Amino acid sequence: MNYCSHCGSSLIYTIPDGDSLHRHVCQQCDTIHYQNPKIITGTIPEWDNKILLCKRAIEPRHGLWTLPAGFMENNETTIEGALRESREEANADLSNLSLFCVFSIPHISQVYMIYRGDINNGHASPGAESLDVNFFNENTIPWSEMAFPVITETLKLYYKDKRNGIFKTHTGDIVRHNNELIITHY
Amino acid sequence: MNYCSHCGSSLIYTIPDGDSLHRHVCQQCDTIHYQNPKIITGTIPEWDNKILLCKRAIEPRHGLWTLPAGFMENNETTIEGALRESREEANADLSNLSLFCVFSIPHISQVYMIYRGDINNGHASPGAESLDVNFFNENTIPWSEMAFPVITETLKLYYKDKRNGIFKTHTGDIVRHNNELIITHY
Repeated sequence: MNYCSHCGSSLIYTIPDGDSLHRHVCQQCDTIHYQNPKIITGTIPEWDNKILLCKRAIEPRHGLWTLPAGFMENNETTIEGALRESREEANADLSNLSLFCVFSIPHISQVYMIYRGDINNGHASPGAESLDVNFFNENTIPWSEMAFPVITETLKLYYKDKRNGIFKTHTGDIVRHNNELIITHY
Repeated sequence: MNYCSHCGSSLIYTIPDGDSLHRHVCQQCDTIHYQNPKIITGTIPEWDNKILLCKRAIEPRHGLWTLPAGFMENNETTIEGALRESREEANADLSNLSLFCVFSIPHISQVYMIYRGDINNGHASPGAESLDVNFFNENTIPWSEMAFPVITETLKLYYKDKRNGIFKTHTGDIVRHNNELIITHY
C-alpha cells in the first residue's frame, strides 16, 4: 500500500495517535487505511450420506480437492455467501444450513466459516472454478490431494462428529510456528 | 475509493472479466481492489452470576452501554481479538472462552463474533475507550441505553439460554429492510 485511495498522496507507515499498531496513514488528508482479516465462507454439502467436494480449476492448488468456499462479499450474510459459493463452484443449491466450524488462520489473516447443508435433490455439476465435483464418504475422500489444511481439518472434525452421532459447532485456530502448522480446536 | 493504493493512478468502477460484481480497478497496473466485510470480535465477560458492560467514551453512541468488542486485526485469531478488546476496553483478563454467537449485518458489511468468558478474579476497570464499566444481571441491565441492536439481541439470547440452563452457539442476521431491522436467528 503506497498511495492514499482517497486523495492519491503518498502514505506513511506509522502508529496513529491513540492507536497501538502501525497503519498506512495519509499525511495530506489524514485518512487512516485500516487492513483487517477476511472471511472465507463455505459449505459441507451433504447428500445420501455422502459429501460433495470440488476439484479446483484455479490457482492456488489447481487440480486439488476442496469444499465450495470463497471470500465473503460486502452486503451479504455469511449464509448468503456460503450458498452463493456452493452455486458458483458446484451448481448446487443447499438447504437447512447449520454452522459447523469457525477457524482463524492468523498468518494469512483469514477466518473460515463452514456450514453443513443438504443439497437439494442431490443436483451438482462443476462451476467455472471447478474441474470436477464428486460425492465421497470418509473412505473415498482423496485425503492426500486436498487443497488446504483447514479443509482437511474441517473434514476430520466432521467425520469425528458423524461417528459420535452428534454435530457440534467447532472453533479453532491454525497457526504457523517455525514453518509448522499448529492446529488447535476448542 | 478514487486512486490505486499500489500505483496512484485513477480507478474505474467496473465488473472485471470473469467476475459478477463491480470492483474498483486500476487501468494502469490492473490491480483489482476488493472490499470485504469486517469482523467485530468481543466477549460477554462473566463474574459471580453477573456480566460486565462498558459505557462508551467514543463515538458512535458515546455514553451508551455495550459489550467489549471491536474490529479484529490482521495476524490475530478471533479469540485473541476478543481477549484484546476485553483488556483494552475493560482492563479485564478472561479465561474459558466459548463461542456464543455469530451475527451478520449485511447493510454495514460487518460480522459480529461474541464469546462468553470468565473474568479472572472479577477484576475490571474502564479502559481508554470506556467512561465506566459495571456488572449487571438481567434485571439491572440498562436495556434502553444500549449502544447497538446486535448487542441487545446478543444479551436477550444470552439470558434465554441462561434460563434454559444450556448455552448454545447461535448464528443470525440483522438485516435492514425499509428502515426497519429484521432480526433472524437459526
